[in-house]
Amino acid sequence: MRTPPSLLSLSIDSALLNLSNFSDLSPLPDHILLDLFLRTLKAGKLTEKILMLFMATGKDEVLALIQSLNIQLITPVLPTSKKMSQTNIGDDEVDIVIGALHADLTSFLNEWRPLFSRFHLIIVKDPDLREELKIPEGFNLHVYTKSDIDRVVGSSYTAINFSGYSCRYFGYLMSRKKYIFSVDDDCIPAKDDKGLSVDAVDQHITNLATPATPFFFNTLYDPFRKGTDFVRGYPFSLRSGVTCALSCGLWLNLADHDAPTQALKPGHRNSRYVDAVLTVPARALMPVSGVNIAFNRELAGPALFPGLRLAAEGKLRWETVEDIWCGLCVKVVCDHLGLGVKTGLPYVWRNDRGNAIESLKKEWEGVKLMEEVVPFFQSVRLSQAAVTTEDCMLEIVALVKERLATLDPVFARAAQAMADWIKLWKAVGSGSGSSRPSNG
Amino acid sequence: MRTPPSLLSLSIDSALLNLSNFSDLSPLPDHILLDLFLRTLKAGKLTEKILMLFMATGKDEVLALIQSLNIQLITPVLPTSKKMSQTNIGDDEVDIVIGALHADLTSFLNEWRPLFSRFHLIIVKDPDLREELKIPEGFNLHVYTKSDIDRVVGSSYTAINFSGYSCRYFGYLMSRKKYIFSVDDDCIPAKDDKGLSVDAVDQHITNLATPATPFFFNTLYDPFRKGTDFVRGYPFSLRSGVTCALSCGLWLNLADHDAPTQALKPGHRNSRYVDAVLTVPARALMPVSGVNIAFNRELAGPALFPGLRLAAEGKLRWETVEDIWCGLCVKVVCDHLGLGVKTGLPYVWRNDRGNAIESLKKEWEGVKLMEEVVPFFQSVRLSQAAVTTEDCMLEIVALVKERLATLDPVFARAAQAMADWIKLWKAVGSGSGSSRPSNG
Repeated sequence: MRTPPSLLSLSIDSALLNLSNFSDLSPLPDHILLDLFLRTLKAGKLTEKILMLFMATGKDEVLALIQSLNIQLITPVLPTSKKMSQTNIGDDEVDIVIGALHADLTSFLNEWRPLFSRFHLIIVKDPDLREELKIPEGFNLHVYTKSDIDRVVGSSYTAINFSGYSCRYFGYLMSRKKYIFSVDDDCIPAKDDKGLSVDAVDQHITNLATPATPFFFNTLYDPFRKGTDFVRGYPFSLRSGVTCALSCGLWLNLADHDAPTQALKPGHRNSRYVDAVLTVPARALMPVSGVNIAFNRELAGPALFPGLRLAAEGKLRWETVEDIWCGLCVKVVCDHLGLGVKTGLPYVWRNDRGNAIESLKKEWEGVKLMEEVVPFFQSVRLSQAAVTTEDCMLEIVALVKERLATLDPVFARAAQAMADWIKLWKAVGSGSGSSRPSNG
Repeated sequence: MRTPPSLLSLSIDSALLNLSNFSDLSPLPDHILLDLFLRTLKAGKLTEKILMLFMATGKDEVLALIQSLNIQLITPVLPTSKKMSQTNIGDDEVDIVIGALHADLTSFLNEWRPLFSRFHLIIVKDPDLREELKIPEGFNLHVYTKSDIDRVVGSSYTAINFSGYSCRYFGYLMSRKKYIFSVDDDCIPAKDDKGLSVDAVDQHITNLATPATPFFFNTLYDPFRKGTDFVRGYPFSLRSGVTCALSCGLWLNLADHDAPTQALKPGHRNSRYVDAVLTVPARALMPVSGVNIAFNRELAGPALFPGLRLAAEGKLRWETVEDIWCGLCVKVVCDHLGLGVKTGLPYVWRNDRGNAIESLKKEWEGVKLMEEVVPFFQSVRLSQAAVTTEDCMLEIVALVKERLATLDPVFARAAQAMADWIKLWKAVGSGSGSSRPSNG
């Protein structure tokens, strides 16, 4: 093995060729070392041994560069199960949860067949729905109905109501997978701006399996997306990011407006495909829509629950705010726990449904409640003792009871539903390290 | 004039037809009133008189709806000068500022001619540049050179150095227009995802002339952009937004990476056109790039100054951080003053220039400084006494001197440059309500 002085006399090109023969690179001047490192990387010659050689120099610049470029030598894993295209997530780590508000799921599921057939589906029938579900053949799925809900939930959790759009939450409770993707039953796969079919499951899982960057805004959008990177000036110490707990997708055709906006613009359609994913910055609140979301079940699940129910809530999205309330909870929890929330891709295509002017009277209550809800969530500060999503939720319950419940009984009911949900989540064993419950 | 009881007996359709005959709508039930209001609006019959009639009911729902839909009756103004397409901004309210780091501006200006010929241009020649500028005919422009800088700045502002990319700031100082658009001289107009030429000036001015929404994140991006709106759950009380002070555009082809990233990915090109504008939420910091920005001169100008200069700073973007530092200042100031910062469209096309590996040694200093700079700006809290951008900047100067200047002399120099800039800005009369200086 050569000694460092002979290395110093080599040109960078010859050093690169002979790198694996050296045992100590530290006598090299810093800028030569950096140049050599980058050339090695570019030449595809950065093996584990050579990386160690660079790290062993102990030089700040080299270590920072290795950290900053997020270089990790990943030992190739032989495939044991089918994997998502861009990630190391197996198909068996994902549940797709559908709340069935309509009995005939034939065309809905057939539209999604190319994407869903590899995954396990959980279909939860709206307990208000009388007709038998019509489900086409060829899916790996489990259907939960009112009798399952009654059996699991029993009569101890009176504040929880799984009817309407809230039926999906029962699916979240029963899943034992790492990730859940949930989409409304009036949505079908969208096409992107080049006319290609969007793989919403793959995109959501990519969003969740790659880090989020909530502590500094990257103007080039999600730096972990292929073809993207951090912009000049982005602090290197923040480039490793944090775990992404929630991925909020968007909608083409019918946008997710409230009833007044929809009523005012009945002919408005969303046709702009924005080819971006981004992390919503820490401490910025957002209206999460339940139409098209995916999440890490253990991290976000306890914050996604059937909570704020309007008195005259109906079976149309714009008549509900339960998901908006959940979204505020989950964002506050993620900010506290140092987790990330992404928004943007994937899009789904939302079909028209309902008459917004008819809904206007119902929705108005929700629109007014938001004026109390947002300043409340902006003021929430959780204690250092809250180290799990469940802990955080119980602290929020106490704050809702203290500050909101006196304003409107709907908030007192929401607080009770949140408390019941956490109790149920633990009892059913949906939390960390739990096994499948016998009644699941 | 009819009395309310007869109004009550009418169908909504007939009421709509006869609305201008009524004097009091308050006896109508709330939901009828809302329905009538929305129909009137949809039918294009909401005149000032009829709007007043609805407002006179004094009903919370109606007033909230009027406020929420951001309805303002704009008296049509006869055009006195040419206007930007989507806004009420005249061409004479905009200065385009170009820092000339290269003597031959012929192809640069010819590429921009279709967009720039309507506007006044300020060209500032890099004081280090020896050769004569080559500028094609047919533009309305003013060129400032080293002798102008020496004359205006004199010897009293020793911390300010207008060389290299910092020469553009002299243009900011001399402008008296409401808005400034500034673009690097290695950029040309981009094409959008449909192959159409992007009007960067128009898009920037639209971003600045429409409100920003920093206090709550809208998942449908900038709600004031045509074809977009607020998403369900967005609080109505926040829908009027705030004044936008800064619009940060993006880059196709060469992205704005730092030297290490560029060195690692020399072949990487940015080809993704993300068709979105969004407000960067309050309290989220971002790396502003000076490559392609526009701003409200009085609101943002005092925070955009030639400040953090690296010892070995060169004439390539990735060798500089002055704009990153300015961006942190301007964002902290905007957050304090309740102003907005948008990012996204418009794109410009950035041509290749320079060798990133050669720049790596110079840039490294900037990359390391960011690790001190970001936690500092995240911790800055300005006092209630700071009510103008100038006030805010002087408070930041004091904090930089107190907390950063001891870490590295580069920060002490930056603080002095900021203080000098504010003094100069006031002396030259660039602030609010100033007239053009005699030596301008």
